[in-house]
Amino acid sequence: MEDLMARIVQAVEDVRRENPMAPSITNTVTINLVANTQLAVGGSAAMVYLPDEAVALAQVAKSFYVNVGTMLPVYEETFVALTEALKGLDLNWVLDPVAVGIGKLRTFSLLKFKEAPPKIIRGNASEIMALCGLWGLEGGEDQSRVRGVDSRDSVEAALDAALSLARFTGGAVAVSGVVDLITDGKVVVRSRGGSHFMEKITGAGCSLGGVCAVYATVTDPLTAAVTATQIYNLAAARAEAQVAGSGSFQVAFIDELYRATGEDVAGNEMTLEVLK
Amino acid sequence: MEDLMARIVQAVEDVRRENPMAPSITNTVTINLVANTQLAVGGSAAMVYLPDEAVALAQVAKSFYVNVGTMLPVYEETFVALTEALKGLDLNWVLDPVAVGIGKLRTFSLLKFKEAPPKIIRGNASEIMALCGLWGLEGGEDQSRVRGVDSRDSVEAALDAALSLARFTGGAVAVSGVVDLITDGKVVVRSRGGSHFMEKITGAGCSLGGVCAVYATVTDPLTAAVTATQIYNLAAARAEAQVAGSGSFQVAFIDELYRATGEDVAGNEMTLEVLK
Amino acid sequence: MEDLMARIVQAVEDVRRENPMAPSITNTVTINLVANTQLAVGGSAAMVYLPDEAVALAQVAKSFYVNVGTMLPVYEETFVALTEALKGLDLNWVLDPVAVGIGKLRTFSLLKFKEAPPKIIRGNASEIMALCGLWGLEGGEDQSRVRGVDSRDSVEAALDAALSLARFTGGAVAVSGVVDLITDGKVVVRSRGGSHFMEKITGAGCSLGGVCAVYATVTDPLTAAVTATQIYNLAAARAEAQVAGSGSFQVAFIDELYRATGEDVAGNEMTLEVLK
Repeated sequence: MEDLMARIVQAVEDVRRENPMAPSITNTVTINLVANTQLAVGGSAAMVYLPDEAVALAQVAKSFYVNVGTMLPVYEETFVALTEALKGLDLNWVLDPVAVGIGKLRTFSLLKFKEAPPKIIRGNASEIMALCGLWGLEGGEDQSRVRGVDSRDSVEAALDAALSLARFTGGAVAVSGVVDLITDGKVVVRSRGGSHFMEKITGAGCSLGGVCAVYATVTDPLTAAVTATQIYNLAAARAEAQVAGSGSFQVAFIDELYRATGEDVAGNEMTLEVLK
Repeated sequence: MEDLMARIVQAVEDVRRENPMAPSITNTVTINLVANTQLAVGGSAAMVYLPDEAVALAQVAKSFYVNVGTMLPVYEETFVALTEALKGLDLNWVLDPVAVGIGKLRTFSLLKFKEAPPKIIRGNASEIMALCGLWGLEGGEDQSRVRGVDSRDSVEAALDAALSLARFTGGAVAVSGVVDLITDGKVVVRSRGGSHFMEKITGAGCSLGGVCAVYATVTDPLTAAVTATQIYNLAAARAEAQVAGSGSFQVAFIDELYRATGEDVAGNEMTLEVLK
Repeated sequence: MEDLMARIVQAVEDVRRENPMAPSITNTVTINLVANTQLAVGGSAAMVYLPDEAVALAQVAKSFYVNVGTMLPVYEETFVALTEALKGLDLNWVLDPVAVGIGKLRTFSLLKFKEAPPKIIRGNASEIMALCGLWGLEGGEDQSRVRGVDSRDSVEAALDAALSLARFTGGAVAVSGVVDLITDGKVVVRSRGGSHFMEKITGAGCSLGGVCAVYATVTDPLTAAVTATQIYNLAAARAEAQVAGSGSFQVAFIDELYRATGEDVAGNEMTLEVLK
């Protein structure tokens, strides 16, 4: 636990000092929030759509963020080209399988990504269970559980799926909910805090994935996913105390991401369970 | 009038309790604001671009929002597929004919939608008159009146066009302006309030369409359009009193959407005229 | 200098009075901020993607803003059609060559634009040097200097490239950095102020390009670029004094754009150097 906390402090400070770029292919609804949260924690953002641009950025970056929230026709080429490139790169790339199960191209793309497994997968409980099912892993569920972008399942119900995915990818899986769960298949970290307002702004989850990718440029997948989740829970709780509505909440939330120190983030309430 | 007010209270409260999803195909400029306003009033947002995804969401939703503000090539397929699907569904879908008259694909799409008429049409006066003209209905005007996204005409000048469109669709038409006008062809509701700042933020109209779609999941088209217009006029007036610029206005406006109660919304100044 | 200050006051006031439309093709990350800043200074925004829509707006507008931040497949047609149309129009159009050097279509498009040279080019130092190199002009540099959207070079290092570009286009070039530099090849204006927060919000540069386009509807390219840069430096400095994080900074920044008077903008610290 102390070791994890030290790594969190280090990750927060390294990002603030190094201003690392974490490129993204992400949805058009929340693309601005993804960039602004990445910048608020100290990273740099770059978003692309075209195949050759995605490959070019993957080749110079230390991580990459893919969020399939709004599928576009060009992704048929872009995601194939990116996956092929990722096979030859040792990149801490992050996948957010938003709304897995809706549409042929989304399903095709999420199956393709299995060939170059992401080092961090972030989603709500229903998405994690559905992706696990789509990939044919133990603990997975039928994709029909997913309703648009919202979860129908509790975080703890997705534990088996998260463990399966983490063991398959060799990376980490973060399940967002009231108490967030992050696992690498060996340990389970539960992070508390957050705010009920996080469901009243669009992109809380999407931007968490983008911030995971920022931390993944400077540390291992588990630490990156825990650090991102912790800074989100801390900033959301601090923001909620200041505001009376969802508009001012988003503003205060970004402010608190910007202001949080490494010690703040490591000190946010969490538990660590070592699996047998 | 009392009946309308009771239905407004009910709509506001039902949405806050049920968190209904209102899927959208909407422009990239204001897509984030559309989602955040839909969430602020208690709904859930889901945006798509591809034909099969649009059809899939239409089949599980109770309403749908289409805003043609930024046309993309894929819409040539998506809007045809969606229109065909809508013919077989009894959906309270909402159309915002932004900038009608600019571009071949926009004109083609807006003509196509006539085959499965929207239950709510929302636009500024020039757009309502131009759509009425495009559809060959009485009271319509030449599309050349539209200048980009801005209106050249007063709300009352669009009354005949609004009545024609409402009688053709069997739904409601909402014309945005200084005093907003909503009609189902039998009654005319005029809603007051609002703020001069609404013209200084992008997406006031677009997001009103998205909020119409949220209320249209729980009530009839006229009540949905009036409720959305009323909560906008109330929240804008309350926000204006708190701020000194257009940046903080948008934040306060979303806060006030989040905070408004059913009684607040029903009690905002409006008049009801029954047509002979 | 007094003449320039008088033209700045005039430009700020003309825009507030006339509400001129400045259409854009701009990236999806910051498209909302571009529109909101254009509205905050008194202009009107309209964003498009399709070839015929771009040409239609260019034909009725007095300026046009092109930002290549996020390339899309349709731009292969749109940018060719727009360039051909611009050849026959006397338009004060503005180019932001974001991330020049990444991707084939971006390179092709930026080369194409040389055929109808923009009247204002806005970029960071690395982008200005790289565009100058791409166009084969003196003072240019290899495109490999550009890292995503961030600059690796100081503003003054880009002076020769800025002069070359300005002399080639017959317009103005604005280089953004700690002290901003604007030149028309005959004079060099340096504008001070701003805020360290401008690097912590996405779109400070993109939206500056959009505001350049708004002012370019009412004045000459040099005055437009200086006015936009001055209002940005003024609003950013004023906003920084009010806030404690990057979220509230963006809100206050838009407020201050909305509130600034012509005298405020002309009076922001700047120097004018006449070249021999």
